[in-house]
Amino acid sequence: MSSLGSSVCGYVLLLLVQIVLIIVFGFFTNYSKELLPINTINGTTVEEMEEETPLAKYPHFQDIHVMIFIGFGFLMTFLKRYGFSATGLNLLVAALAIQWAIVMRGCYVMEGGKIPLSLDNLIGADIAAAAVLISMGALLGRTTPMQLLVMTIFEIAIFAANEFLQVDLMRIADVGGSITVHAFGAYFGLAVSFVLRPNKENCKTGPMECSSYSSDITAMIGTVFLWIFWPSFNSALVDGAEQERAIINTYLSLAGATVTTYIMSVMVSHEKKFDMVHVQNSTLAGGVAVGSICNLLIHPFGAILVGVIAGVISVLGYRFLTPAMLSKLRISDTCGVNNLHGMPALLSAVFSGIYASVATSEAYGNSLTSIFPAMKPNTTLTEEDMHEMVIGGYGRSAAMQGAYQLLAILLTVVIAIMGGLCTGLVLKSPTMRQLEQDEHHKDDVCWETPVELETTVTTSLCQ
Amino acid sequence: MSSLGSSVCGYVLLLLVQIVLIIVFGFFTNYSKELLPINTINGTTVEEMEEETPLAKYPHFQDIHVMIFIGFGFLMTFLKRYGFSATGLNLLVAALAIQWAIVMRGCYVMEGGKIPLSLDNLIGADIAAAAVLISMGALLGRTTPMQLLVMTIFEIAIFAANEFLQVDLMRIADVGGSITVHAFGAYFGLAVSFVLRPNKENCKTGPMECSSYSSDITAMIGTVFLWIFWPSFNSALVDGAEQERAIINTYLSLAGATVTTYIMSVMVSHEKKFDMVHVQNSTLAGGVAVGSICNLLIHPFGAILVGVIAGVISVLGYRFLTPAMLSKLRISDTCGVNNLHGMPALLSAVFSGIYASVATSEAYGNSLTSIFPAMKPNTTLTEEDMHEMVIGGYGRSAAMQGAYQLLAILLTVVIAIMGGLCTGLVLKSPTMRQLEQDEHHKDDVCWETPVELETTVTTSLCQ
Amino acid sequence: MSSLGSSVCGYVLLLLVQIVLIIVFGFFTNYSKELLPINTINGTTVEEMEEETPLAKYPHFQDIHVMIFIGFGFLMTFLKRYGFSATGLNLLVAALAIQWAIVMRGCYVMEGGKIPLSLDNLIGADIAAAAVLISMGALLGRTTPMQLLVMTIFEIAIFAANEFLQVDLMRIADVGGSITVHAFGAYFGLAVSFVLRPNKENCKTGPMECSSYSSDITAMIGTVFLWIFWPSFNSALVDGAEQERAIINTYLSLAGATVTTYIMSVMVSHEKKFDMVHVQNSTLAGGVAVGSICNLLIHPFGAILVGVIAGVISVLGYRFLTPAMLSKLRISDTCGVNNLHGMPALLSAVFSGIYASVATSEAYGNSLTSIFPAMKPNTTLTEEDMHEMVIGGYGRSAAMQGAYQLLAILLTVVIAIMGGLCTGLVLKSPTMRQLEQDEHHKDDVCWETPVELETTVTTSLCQ
Repeated sequence: MSSLGSSVCGYVLLLLVQIVLIIVFGFFTNYSKELLPINTINGTTVEEMEEETPLAKYPHFQDIHVMIFIGFGFLMTFLKRYGFSATGLNLLVAALAIQWAIVMRGCYVMEGGKIPLSLDNLIGADIAAAAVLISMGALLGRTTPMQLLVMTIFEIAIFAANEFLQVDLMRIADVGGSITVHAFGAYFGLAVSFVLRPNKENCKTGPMECSSYSSDITAMIGTVFLWIFWPSFNSALVDGAEQERAIINTYLSLAGATVTTYIMSVMVSHEKKFDMVHVQNSTLAGGVAVGSICNLLIHPFGAILVGVIAGVISVLGYRFLTPAMLSKLRISDTCGVNNLHGMPALLSAVFSGIYASVATSEAYGNSLTSIFPAMKPNTTLTEEDMHEMVIGGYGRSAAMQGAYQLLAILLTVVIAIMGGLCTGLVLKSPTMRQLEQDEHHKDDVCWETPVELETTVTTSLCQ
Repeated sequence: MSSLGSSVCGYVLLLLVQIVLIIVFGFFTNYSKELLPINTINGTTVEEMEEETPLAKYPHFQDIHVMIFIGFGFLMTFLKRYGFSATGLNLLVAALAIQWAIVMRGCYVMEGGKIPLSLDNLIGADIAAAAVLISMGALLGRTTPMQLLVMTIFEIAIFAANEFLQVDLMRIADVGGSITVHAFGAYFGLAVSFVLRPNKENCKTGPMECSSYSSDITAMIGTVFLWIFWPSFNSALVDGAEQERAIINTYLSLAGATVTTYIMSVMVSHEKKFDMVHVQNSTLAGGVAVGSICNLLIHPFGAILVGVIAGVISVLGYRFLTPAMLSKLRISDTCGVNNLHGMPALLSAVFSGIYASVATSEAYGNSLTSIFPAMKPNTTLTEEDMHEMVIGGYGRSAAMQGAYQLLAILLTVVIAIMGGLCTGLVLKSPTMRQLEQDEHHKDDVCWETPVELETTVTTSLCQ
Repeated sequence: MSSLGSSVCGYVLLLLVQIVLIIVFGFFTNYSKELLPINTINGTTVEEMEEETPLAKYPHFQDIHVMIFIGFGFLMTFLKRYGFSATGLNLLVAALAIQWAIVMRGCYVMEGGKIPLSLDNLIGADIAAAAVLISMGALLGRTTPMQLLVMTIFEIAIFAANEFLQVDLMRIADVGGSITVHAFGAYFGLAVSFVLRPNKENCKTGPMECSSYSSDITAMIGTVFLWIFWPSFNSALVDGAEQERAIINTYLSLAGATVTTYIMSVMVSHEKKFDMVHVQNSTLAGGVAVGSICNLLIHPFGAILVGVIAGVISVLGYRFLTPAMLSKLRISDTCGVNNLHGMPALLSAVFSGIYASVATSEAYGNSLTSIFPAMKPNTTLTEEDMHEMVIGGYGRSAAMQGAYQLLAILLTVVIAIMGGLCTGLVLKSPTMRQLEQDEHHKDDVCWETPVELETTVTTSLCQ
């Protein structure tokens, strides 16, 4: 097995990237005003504002932090000989992504030439990293670390632009990020996977692309932590009653998706038994599917129903769609991100369109225009609102808001696929080392691994 | 090994249960008033109340959520070939239990025909799920998933009724749920285990009922997370000074129980070494034993002492009582829930009786009647109090409150055992598939498992 | 392999220690005043003060709690046959340490002969336990449990005295504990390791001192949880803007250290691949290196830069320094605590000296004297300040504060080494059972372990 020796120069480049990041942070960031002991407001120097309340969002942030670094990292350890890469590359990719995301997302909110840093930027950076890790899930085991890092650079830049387009300019409602994070990450990754597709003769599941008994259990660490903290992910960006509704709806949707996953798994699996792949992934589809609507008045029963539908779609996807995509379109999807993130996110977007189009001020009261800011009537706009750029302008009707929600998912998928195709071409360029077919899904390619006898033994028996 | 094929119809029934749950949620639940943008108070329509404070209990909720889904799930992975079931069935059973618990517990607090949902219901549902998972621990590896799900339906219903009886009608103090959760769950599970007891000739530890080196380590993930977040479990339902005392007392009790567990383990184990079973379980007994009294003025030294006693009892239970129960009464207790939950909970209840009977308003001041509401003197009752039903009425003396605490544990154990016996009879009915003796403690019975050589090898050597 | 049978008397002694602790808690502790329902202020009996705000620091506490019990415990599971000890002894040592630390740290803050207990004491006790667990990392696999427990008793006492000296008397700034915890713990442990050094002929890496594929993955559970919650560790003792700066700086420093670790690992490792030892440890060096300065105005770019430097130093330490220390000085350092805790802490202390010496009230405003209390001008001292003992008195200049920061790390290292040498002599005394060379890094010495065939097989192949 060849070493990555030839790519040491790649890591010199990565060092350069890290140094450039330090310089960019030096010139273009600062702590946000409230965090500076002395700062200037309207030309007057004032002392640090007393922050009376403790950091209200910090527990939410830490829950999301666990999802990104433990959740995604361990979920990907399901491959029997790719656990070092799953946990290790997850950490590396995310550590680069969060630095770069602070810069890229910050471009759109600069104040006086500086990106003001506060806890909000860290939450946003973690969420951006999620998109990259979802794409990594589609490619798992079929790229070099260097390819993943290059993808991170491109994907974060495109992600930040699309997020700004959807949330700030189009003013769509997407508190759980189903549109901007899950759909984006999944279809970006699948587009890259399409470009990196194997030759026809190699177009089958690799010999190492299977789990072992212990790797399936460590993967459950990831699954369960993602499951537990998903309500925090979906509710981190809202407050008060909206936040509590987001928590309740996500909790119920996940519960519904989980029960459904087990039922479907027994129904469709070969031996009428539970399949770990379904349990590890489809149980989480409820969190994605409720993402864009979890703060709306979808009623508790609506939340469970959405989860149940997501569970059905996701298990069917793993059982029938993923193999078909591989054999027909030669698109590999190692973790099945289309079934966990892609399709449930489309579902969420469609539901958000429906719920938006029937939203009335009779039901929502004053919170209508805080949930859907572009529905603010033109007559009530403040000075500040006037200066904001909103595509299509304020004063949207409910039906129009619904249409914008659908436009948002369409645009996001198109941007993600275009971005993924371009990024894939870069990753496939001759300057980048590609993995050989027999190097797929093997830690040994880029990790020093302990020598153990049983490896050879179990390998030969896989499948 | 036979598949579960015959029970596909069981999963069709489960699907029906999930659909019924959706309908029940549709008709009988709604977000609680504070979470609705527009609601009606005394006939006047008002806007959403501003919720100024962030969700104060949310971090506590998430800690408990980790205990239920990671803690219980991974603690049960200690069996060498039952890790898929431990983590997977834990997730399935809990996902059903929380939905059902919201309904069953909600029956007693309906407002206008609707159960008002807020974060409190989720906390309560998670705690109810804990009781079922404790019972599952007693039965681990000796039931089909379908039997567990049927048990969940029965147990949650009985749990909710008993909880209402003890906390609302009898007004006993049990903030950590030692009486209503731990004692209930343990003796319910043991009663089911008694009904499902094997024939005399099979009454021994099964060939797969042992741990492997790696399964003992993944079990420690569960143990340590339970250990860490137990102070949150015990303090989630109280506030202010009571909450902080509950945290401190639980922390100290766990520390005392832990040191004691190691000492006792060396003392009683065969080779004078530490035994992983003790470390995985008895270290947690301190959290159970302090549960009913953790908010009282038990003094820090009292907290440690309770933990030390619990550690001693629990290790002795594992060493002597569990084998005796199996050989004498043919009651299997796979996880030893009697030693971790049952006996320490009895201890906690007895202590709660003692502490209640010596509680004076000299020591507790105004907080006396908030901790023991039924001790409110008849002269100070408000209009609202008059409408509440309290068994035995208000104006209890300290001694009477102590007696009620003891009555509560007695009633709880009786209800749990009766409920468990009836549930066990249902699980043993001919319509339900039973596991054969040689299917015990094996994932392969209901999971698609990877084929690996070493399985056969290690199996043959176990014990 | 001999059992620990002879040391049963050791565990009788431990039981005695636990009983003594109960008695000490009985006589010398109580809940702090705010937690007592009725208490006396200036001779007047008053009711419990209403605590309006929820426990603001509780989420921070629980994050640290996860670091101590999951983080340290699982990080140390990297040895292939020492996972029971890693997780189990971590729990035992920490459970003793926290009880003892409450007493020892409390000596310096007694009120009326009692140590007032509140959540703050638990946070402080957890942090003190971290120092012991760091020392344990240096010795991992080369001591009996009893030796670790004796070390705990000595180390906590010396730790508490040194912490009081540096923080209360010298008034140095060290919010993340790099000086008082990381440097102290590392050099204490290395000094003990020096005393327990092997004979010349045995001075090499032991046959069991290596990882297995699965043990490297469970170790990542520890690494990633430490990584995730490090911002909570560094920010737990400050509030408001300082706290948020501490979080941001630690987050950025860790990200920088992580990317750098991977780069350096490829550069220096034998096969130009990633080395799990580096990934498990050096990624965390950024958290240590920013510890003493994370609340200062180091600018985001400063935070990343510190992390990058720490990553470089730490990986080089693992690659070159640790083997050299073993071969030249015969100092074993199983977990490489010098590279993860020692050197990055020295770096942090030096930076804290530099930043302190350039701190001006122009930049810091009023927060200058809350961050560096001894810089309070003599003219502005309150009555209360007058009664506080501060070494060198108030009115320090920035340069003097910088010098005190450097003095603090010097004193801490000297005290740690002296304390470690003395403790090591106790551990080496003939009354204490020592491990034989062939008992090193083996769980079987003090744990009942499952019998498994593959053990023998893999052992013989290790490196």
